[in-house]
Amino acid sequence: MPRIVMEGAAAQVAAREARARRALAAFERAVGAAHVVVDEAALARYGRSTGPADCRPLAVVCPSTTEEVQAVVRAAGRAGLPLYPIARGRNWGYGDACAPAPGQVIVDLRRMDRILEVDRDLAYCVIEPGVTQGQLRERLQGTGLWMDATGAGPGASLVGNTLDRGFGHTPYGDHVASTCGMEVVLADGRLLRTGFGHYEGARAASTYRYGVGPSLDGLFQQSGMGIVTRIGLWLMPAPEACLGYFIRCDAEDDLEPMIDALRRLRLDEVLRSAIHVGNDLRVLSGRTRYPWERAGGRTPLPDDLRAALRREHGVGAWNVAGALYGSRECVAAARRVVRRTLGRRWRVVFVDERRLAQADLLGRLLARVGLGARLRRQVDLGRDVLKVLQGVPTDGALPGACWRVRGPLPPGPVDPLAANAGLLWVSPVAPASGAAAREVMDIAGPIYLEHGFEPLVTFTLITPRALCCVTNVAFDRREPEEAARAAACYDALVEALMARGFIPYRTGPLGFGKLARGSSVFWDVARQLKDALDPAGIMSPGRYDPLASMHQTR
Amino acid sequence: MPRIVMEGAAAQVAAREARARRALAAFERAVGAAHVVVDEAALARYGRSTGPADCRPLAVVCPSTTEEVQAVVRAAGRAGLPLYPIARGRNWGYGDACAPAPGQVIVDLRRMDRILEVDRDLAYCVIEPGVTQGQLRERLQGTGLWMDATGAGPGASLVGNTLDRGFGHTPYGDHVASTCGMEVVLADGRLLRTGFGHYEGARAASTYRYGVGPSLDGLFQQSGMGIVTRIGLWLMPAPEACLGYFIRCDAEDDLEPMIDALRRLRLDEVLRSAIHVGNDLRVLSGRTRYPWERAGGRTPLPDDLRAALRREHGVGAWNVAGALYGSRECVAAARRVVRRTLGRRWRVVFVDERRLAQADLLGRLLARVGLGARLRRQVDLGRDVLKVLQGVPTDGALPGACWRVRGPLPPGPVDPLAANAGLLWVSPVAPASGAAAREVMDIAGPIYLEHGFEPLVTFTLITPRALCCVTNVAFDRREPEEAARAAACYDALVEALMARGFIPYRTGPLGFGKLARGSSVFWDVARQLKDALDPAGIMSPGRYDPLASMHQTR
Repeated sequence: MPRIVMEGAAAQVAAREARARRALAAFERAVGAAHVVVDEAALARYGRSTGPADCRPLAVVCPSTTEEVQAVVRAAGRAGLPLYPIARGRNWGYGDACAPAPGQVIVDLRRMDRILEVDRDLAYCVIEPGVTQGQLRERLQGTGLWMDATGAGPGASLVGNTLDRGFGHTPYGDHVASTCGMEVVLADGRLLRTGFGHYEGARAASTYRYGVGPSLDGLFQQSGMGIVTRIGLWLMPAPEACLGYFIRCDAEDDLEPMIDALRRLRLDEVLRSAIHVGNDLRVLSGRTRYPWERAGGRTPLPDDLRAALRREHGVGAWNVAGALYGSRECVAAARRVVRRTLGRRWRVVFVDERRLAQADLLGRLLARVGLGARLRRQVDLGRDVLKVLQGVPTDGALPGACWRVRGPLPPGPVDPLAANAGLLWVSPVAPASGAAAREVMDIAGPIYLEHGFEPLVTFTLITPRALCCVTNVAFDRREPEEAARAAACYDALVEALMARGFIPYRTGPLGFGKLARGSSVFWDVARQLKDALDPAGIMSPGRYDPLASMHQTR
Repeated sequence: MPRIVMEGAAAQVAAREARARRALAAFERAVGAAHVVVDEAALARYGRSTGPADCRPLAVVCPSTTEEVQAVVRAAGRAGLPLYPIARGRNWGYGDACAPAPGQVIVDLRRMDRILEVDRDLAYCVIEPGVTQGQLRERLQGTGLWMDATGAGPGASLVGNTLDRGFGHTPYGDHVASTCGMEVVLADGRLLRTGFGHYEGARAASTYRYGVGPSLDGLFQQSGMGIVTRIGLWLMPAPEACLGYFIRCDAEDDLEPMIDALRRLRLDEVLRSAIHVGNDLRVLSGRTRYPWERAGGRTPLPDDLRAALRREHGVGAWNVAGALYGSRECVAAARRVVRRTLGRRWRVVFVDERRLAQADLLGRLLARVGLGARLRRQVDLGRDVLKVLQGVPTDGALPGACWRVRGPLPPGPVDPLAANAGLLWVSPVAPASGAAAREVMDIAGPIYLEHGFEPLVTFTLITPRALCCVTNVAFDRREPEEAARAAACYDALVEALMARGFIPYRTGPLGFGKLARGSSVFWDVARQLKDALDPAGIMSPGRYDPLASMHQTR
């Protein structure tokens, strides 16, 4: 009997391999041999991660049209081969370009990089998943339209980020809320259009989100229910005025009153964009790396050194950045309200292009007499942040991923993978109240320190009522002990935060299995819906599917 | 053979009746006999409609708790009895309290009228489906929170309206966009909580909408996928200032430039609420009824009479109503921008409490010398509209449903059913452009007139980019010929508008079957998802399900 079983197993493996070979041949027919990657070195590159372990795919297929995606999906279905779509693979710290498990076929959508429509009057565009932030920014020059950008850099995909519910900095910072209409390839190759998009000639397909009947868009966010090949994205008409505001809070316990004050201004719609409140370490990580030498190799960062860095870089315990957008008069009115309400307790600095130009001029004058270096640095920093607040994608946030990397970084723009940056985001959501923010800090702070890491923290008022608290375990991937400790720290953080009701808004492969946590009906239903659309389970198995992750049924 | 078939059919009927009797007994055990309605007169009352035909249910069950709803659903599942949930049954003109087909069991949720939570700081509430607009308004007195109300009156349900994607007048006018978290009883009796609500002790369940993993809320809007027993609803902190604005456009072709100007102000966020642009007939229908006598019984309304009514009531060809909300300074700034941009071409009247009080005083002074009657009427009208713009539910819009009713109306607040008002909404969505609005008018206007009806029209800028165009066929239900003509007019309107890409945002039983229109994948997928959650098809069969409606498979 055992021998027969063995032979049966061997035969199954052989049959599976034959099916996979046939599928790869079908992929080549569908997209051209040049766009099917099976070369070991290339697969290893795709398998690199900012997480503790790499995750090598079986192959990579790069379709260039929706029809090609449909053909790829059908071939995978016949072979029972699992697919994992990526847009630009820059899901930094949440899995990067990797599937949740090795051996899946990556569907790399980078060749689908068409900007299909830009409507100036109605202020939207329709784009494919391969379109990068930098590419859209370029295309929008001279149109009078602004986009919203995340910190993932000019090379990151807008569609990929939106489907993972990412956010940026402008009034269009909640990306899901700015999306209108999707085109989705389902597991059986059918093409679904959501909203009104499935009606021929529908006039409001890119301007009215819900369509008629059930709204299906939510199914394709943070899931493995289909491959999104197109979305509509709303854009912001360039406002008459854009005024950045920056507030430095020197006391750690300014957090509570600041969050409460910001919530009230958000609820009153004086402030209308995503507001970011970063701690000292978050800001420092964008400007410098862990001071290994000054710390004598010790971790976590000693208190006195932290205080010194804060002073040297002019950084507060908490640092608020946001902007006012709108007509000149409305921005001026909002500025007065902000100054009156926040200015009583904190120093609010307002920055716009005009002010920056004045400071720049002053800095250059001072330079003639050998002064003004600090002012010039501040002008450069201010310009960078103002860009971000205007939706300009920059590489400015990526160095933060390298906080704990030792030694020199490769030259050129930061690539977290090439830099061996270890990055595990822990992103609990809290109600927008100072007390809740404090509670998150009280839970997470000690766990970070116990594991030898520093809490790098941003609280983002993504809406008037919710804080996305984005923290990350930063580590050096070349240090196996540190990487293992990072994973343990991640586990402890997610466990402790979820136990207290702070659920992550987003997670990566290490977190998918943790999402079930005593809420069986929701995940059972999600699974039922997934099974209805993808009975063979070929689409992104395991992605945001804790039941699959827990039982490894696939 | 025929006889055996007959006997078989008779046996089947008998078996079905036995199952129905057992189900009714189970309902009685679940909710108490007093809350199961089988009395013929009562069922006839439930079956009344503003549509052309009544639709009598088999029974009505009135659960008072989620657990009772679960028990009812399980009993219906065992018996294969179709259920149709209603909240307050005031889905006027879209089916009212009626299921799409006779013989279903109405689950009347009016006893589930608990306001479970009101959070002043985070500005939200959690409510059951039986909670009425008037009830929530009452509860919010003194809390510093405002709600948004529709024109369906104080007795209408907030949950029911939200699930049909209704909208109101304030910055929270898009009700779906203000909802956060649902509790849903599924067809098999399981209880699903969406967003973060399925995690025990989740802190942001009512403040962050998406949860983690796929977002399922959209499935339960405009569908028959479950019975929603609870939702979170965001509320607006009472603004420091609320300034209504009213614009009368005397020329019919003011529509295009007005819509374009309003879109730009919405996109620039100078205007931030749902803006309503009603034609003369829409406004007149709220203040008077069809002038049967003056028209000598003729329909549609003769042009000269329409012009006379317009003059007599001081109504424009197009009439804009909206409000500015926020801090005093921000509202004052927005007012200046509105006056500058719209005031060049049109007369903009701003109205707030203070101005109304002044006019009121003046009117009362004039009354002493026998003057000021018109001013006093205007003050009363202004006060009513300002209430609506402040989210106060009123009965003010309901008389509009009675436009074509002949003879005296029953005394007391308007009840469209008691008044024999015939009402069929046709509600196409257009992009927010003047040209598109004109196109809708050019399609719909002639069809209304050809069928002997007048186009009563409102364009609502529900978002900066979309217009919900709400028109209605108004008729007298006691006139069979007129009712038949109304149904024909409805069919012609929906057909013509959909053919040109103007798809309805919402529809009633007469429209469900029209929604498939050459978009098979979307509706097939919706059906697959429905089948996954409700394989026996007991939940609201036919509701927003064109495949069921077309083939009458259930």
